[in-house]
Amino acid sequence: MPASPPTQTATLLVCCPDRRGIVAALAQVLHGHGANILEADQHTDREAGIFFQRIHFDAREMLTDRATLERAIAEVAGRLDMQWRLEFGDRLKRVAIFVSKYDHCLWDLLLRHRAGELRCEIPLIVSNHETLRDVAEQFGIPYHVFPISKETKPAQEEAEIALLREHDVDLVVLARYMQVLSADFLQRFARPVINIHHSFLPAFSGARPYHQAVERGVKLIGATAHYATSDLDEGPIIEQDVARASHRHSVSDLVQRGRDVERNTLSRAVRWHLEDRVLVHGNKTVVFE
Amino acid sequence: MPASPPTQTATLLVCCPDRRGIVAALAQVLHGHGANILEADQHTDREAGIFFQRIHFDAREMLTDRATLERAIAEVAGRLDMQWRLEFGDRLKRVAIFVSKYDHCLWDLLLRHRAGELRCEIPLIVSNHETLRDVAEQFGIPYHVFPISKETKPAQEEAEIALLREHDVDLVVLARYMQVLSADFLQRFARPVINIHHSFLPAFSGARPYHQAVERGVKLIGATAHYATSDLDEGPIIEQDVARASHRHSVSDLVQRGRDVERNTLSRAVRWHLEDRVLVHGNKTVVFE
Amino acid sequence: MPASPPTQTATLLVCCPDRRGIVAALAQVLHGHGANILEADQHTDREAGIFFQRIHFDAREMLTDRATLERAIAEVAGRLDMQWRLEFGDRLKRVAIFVSKYDHCLWDLLLRHRAGELRCEIPLIVSNHETLRDVAEQFGIPYHVFPISKETKPAQEEAEIALLREHDVDLVVLARYMQVLSADFLQRFARPVINIHHSFLPAFSGARPYHQAVERGVKLIGATAHYATSDLDEGPIIEQDVARASHRHSVSDLVQRGRDVERNTLSRAVRWHLEDRVLVHGNKTVVFE
Amino acid sequence: MPASPPTQTATLLVCCPDRRGIVAALAQVLHGHGANILEADQHTDREAGIFFQRIHFDAREMLTDRATLERAIAEVAGRLDMQWRLEFGDRLKRVAIFVSKYDHCLWDLLLRHRAGELRCEIPLIVSNHETLRDVAEQFGIPYHVFPISKETKPAQEEAEIALLREHDVDLVVLARYMQVLSADFLQRFARPVINIHHSFLPAFSGARPYHQAVERGVKLIGATAHYATSDLDEGPIIEQDVARASHRHSVSDLVQRGRDVERNTLSRAVRWHLEDRVLVHGNKTVVFE
Repeated sequence: MPASPPTQTATLLVCCPDRRGIVAALAQVLHGHGANILEADQHTDREAGIFFQRIHFDAREMLTDRATLERAIAEVAGRLDMQWRLEFGDRLKRVAIFVSKYDHCLWDLLLRHRAGELRCEIPLIVSNHETLRDVAEQFGIPYHVFPISKETKPAQEEAEIALLREHDVDLVVLARYMQVLSADFLQRFARPVINIHHSFLPAFSGARPYHQAVERGVKLIGATAHYATSDLDEGPIIEQDVARASHRHSVSDLVQRGRDVERNTLSRAVRWHLEDRVLVHGNKTVVFE
Repeated sequence: MPASPPTQTATLLVCCPDRRGIVAALAQVLHGHGANILEADQHTDREAGIFFQRIHFDAREMLTDRATLERAIAEVAGRLDMQWRLEFGDRLKRVAIFVSKYDHCLWDLLLRHRAGELRCEIPLIVSNHETLRDVAEQFGIPYHVFPISKETKPAQEEAEIALLREHDVDLVVLARYMQVLSADFLQRFARPVINIHHSFLPAFSGARPYHQAVERGVKLIGATAHYATSDLDEGPIIEQDVARASHRHSVSDLVQRGRDVERNTLSRAVRWHLEDRVLVHGNKTVVFE
Repeated sequence: MPASPPTQTATLLVCCPDRRGIVAALAQVLHGHGANILEADQHTDREAGIFFQRIHFDAREMLTDRATLERAIAEVAGRLDMQWRLEFGDRLKRVAIFVSKYDHCLWDLLLRHRAGELRCEIPLIVSNHETLRDVAEQFGIPYHVFPISKETKPAQEEAEIALLREHDVDLVVLARYMQVLSADFLQRFARPVINIHHSFLPAFSGARPYHQAVERGVKLIGATAHYATSDLDEGPIIEQDVARASHRHSVSDLVQRGRDVERNTLSRAVRWHLEDRVLVHGNKTVVFE
Repeated sequence: MPASPPTQTATLLVCCPDRRGIVAALAQVLHGHGANILEADQHTDREAGIFFQRIHFDAREMLTDRATLERAIAEVAGRLDMQWRLEFGDRLKRVAIFVSKYDHCLWDLLLRHRAGELRCEIPLIVSNHETLRDVAEQFGIPYHVFPISKETKPAQEEAEIALLREHDVDLVVLARYMQVLSADFLQRFARPVINIHHSFLPAFSGARPYHQAVERGVKLIGATAHYATSDLDEGPIIEQDVARASHRHSVSDLVQRGRDVERNTLSRAVRWHLEDRVLVHGNKTVVFE
């Protein structure tokens, strides 16, 4: 019995007030349409009284078409006051990677993508510098440069958003992009943006976290992948990881050690997002690993 | 919305040939009897074509009694050629801990039990030595000594089994018990036995694993918690963990470092078993953490 | 060639402005007195231009007595503008453990002490509650209760200091002691105090760190062992560690998971201090693991 | 006080029967020649009675030339029956990377080299397949293909050794090279060869370790970097690391997860070797991290 080809699977993500019978209701609907559930994971936030579920199913032998299934889910969702999203595996998400001068996260994402670890399309790379054009070219990905100054920022972000829309980008990944996206950008792009911050948030938010880490003499350094919001470094955290540090490490040693933590943390967060494993509620995430 | 008191929850564990509709069928049955699903986790072994599921539900508002629910599940199970087990939270498993002279795993289990991390009763501790009687007494647990020699072993095991039956013991935990239980013991006790082996199996099976580790010059040492079978160190693995080692560590250093790994690995395995998170299939485990 | 019995070894800790020849000078002095160097570790803080070294040596075959060796070291130290400390292994440090109601760190320290992992004497345990008296008694250690209220605090700390002096205590370990020691206490006790804070400092300093962690939705929780100073949670960090957290963990789940991280982090920090592996400089530590 | 430029530092590695005064003798010699010790680490294998030391020093202000220093060290070494090696930082080691079809370790080594994490020259890449030529070309490194069949192996290895000699290669790194180097190759090349094995040795030596891991149902997978010897998978271990595995992981999942462990383990081992931190004694390593 072979694994279902990802192109013929689908994922249903739901979130609603908790009550009895939700699991059975959704299982029935899917079964009734011939969907074969491959994975199902759920969580109830007891304090908030919210129910979350991710159902990953095989759509090869569905008895009805997608529209019919969606109508059926919508009907149940209406009764249960449910927010839901249905993603079909044959439609790859389109990702734009934003970079500046550091290349380690970019290399990691592009190599994992080529190795098949990240199911998505990467139609373009955006940067505020020319520096990494050759990396993009090695992977045959268009590289767009938008130099940013205090004066040009609004116009450049305008142009970036136009470009993202033109390429129908679903997700922006800030791979050590050294510019803060304006609240206006985030609001108008209106799709998820994942950022990697090079510290174990909420410790050492803001600038130069490795300098802060040496200053404080911590024994671990970390990285945090989170959805970008208008509150800098305050968005919902998707993943965090750490590495040992000691008195022997200068700032530049930590920068080097940090590279591994940053890229691994970011790529895990991006993969989970691409596999529809992340639900955001308020300022927190539910990650169905 | 408070957490459901564990005494009023139940867990259904199932295993059957994979086919469509299993998830829906079980969800329906439980819902139909007023059970509210709190957690559900599933796994399909594609190669073997076997479906596994753990459903943890709130039984407070069940519309029928247990016998009725069990009949209903049995009926579905019959149709699906399903092996199943239904465990109610108000019935605590009864655990017997076997020890010899090392006390670190015993202390860890007893302190975690007292702290509420291990939901079970511990009616007795069995040993082949007097050494740890005072530990048992500090927790008010009867301590039974069965000295073992080549000659006395059969008779002593006979007596141990009688004692375990008398106390209706569900699980035996070998907490660094330095005697091999005979195949006859395991067959006649016929209930699970969890052992902790002080190496990362299959490396360094058999005697003196820390000596073997120093001999080979490995850079990590480990521990393995597994169900005991008649094939020594070959039973289904429940959990494993490791710690760093280096050229600086003598055998006695590793013995000391190993204690932390052994006790943490064993206590996790025991907790997962007590929470009905472990399914055994062939020589492997499915652990729904 | 057997390990040197710890009672016949000694440790020299030095700190001075960096310059050439320090290593050779100290090695010569020790060799000249018949001390056999077993371990030597050093560090230079290039920014501050400070040299640190720990030399652990076998004193069994010393050609001179301690006073002579100390005079010789003092002479070199004078030339090199060096701060130094010489600790002989036959003099065990005397430790007082402060606790309140949580027992996990206390158990861990006492069991590791009994197992020989912590080379020290523990002449007394101090608490602001009766709660843990039975634990102390199981180890035959006097348990002194000083209830603290806003009004009684100064007088009680006075009494505690008198008691610590009477027992010639070298180190106070705050094993989840839920009272803040006053700046006056720290200044007058004038010996090291190690505290365990149940978060990955500087994140979540202050009260209820696990509540803060759930609030922020972090994916790792941590613990920090540090020397207590008059700036709460700001003292020099000795050791930190973390454990995974997820959306599934309530505050009480984190409290439970946190116990393992707290006790392991604290016991490592205490062991390193007892083995004279920690040097404090400014608000940071040099830890020669 | 800036860090010493690595090109003006040197490292002395020694190994000799343990006795008193070794540390002082070496420190004196180096000091006498104006060498400033930056790091010194030592280890005594008590069972074997062998002393190991690594001394890293600043050679900028040496009062004599290298030859004079070497003569002085040789003189002391003679008295102490010492094996020694003196490596100057201005002479970069020359590394040949051997690959087959897997590219993850190759990318990792080449990117870390470009990022300055691996101080060496990489004059050539050798393979038994054309597959990875484009990777080599992206870094401007000559790529030599030697197809291997049972018949051609001796002649091809002959040619490989000639090529390695021609390029004065100091170290061969087998980055998932899927051919076993013959005992004859190792003996005639007579310089270190580092291999990465994709399991936690001694578990799962030989072929298809991930298949063996799934078969046995282990809960951790690992990787082992070791010096290649004529006994396959039996050489001195330099570094090992692990990652979690579970019932959910198929062989192909483990292959993917394993890639991260393999490349991180191999690159650490190679870095330590390049920084002269590894001493081999018998079948074990002393690694001065």
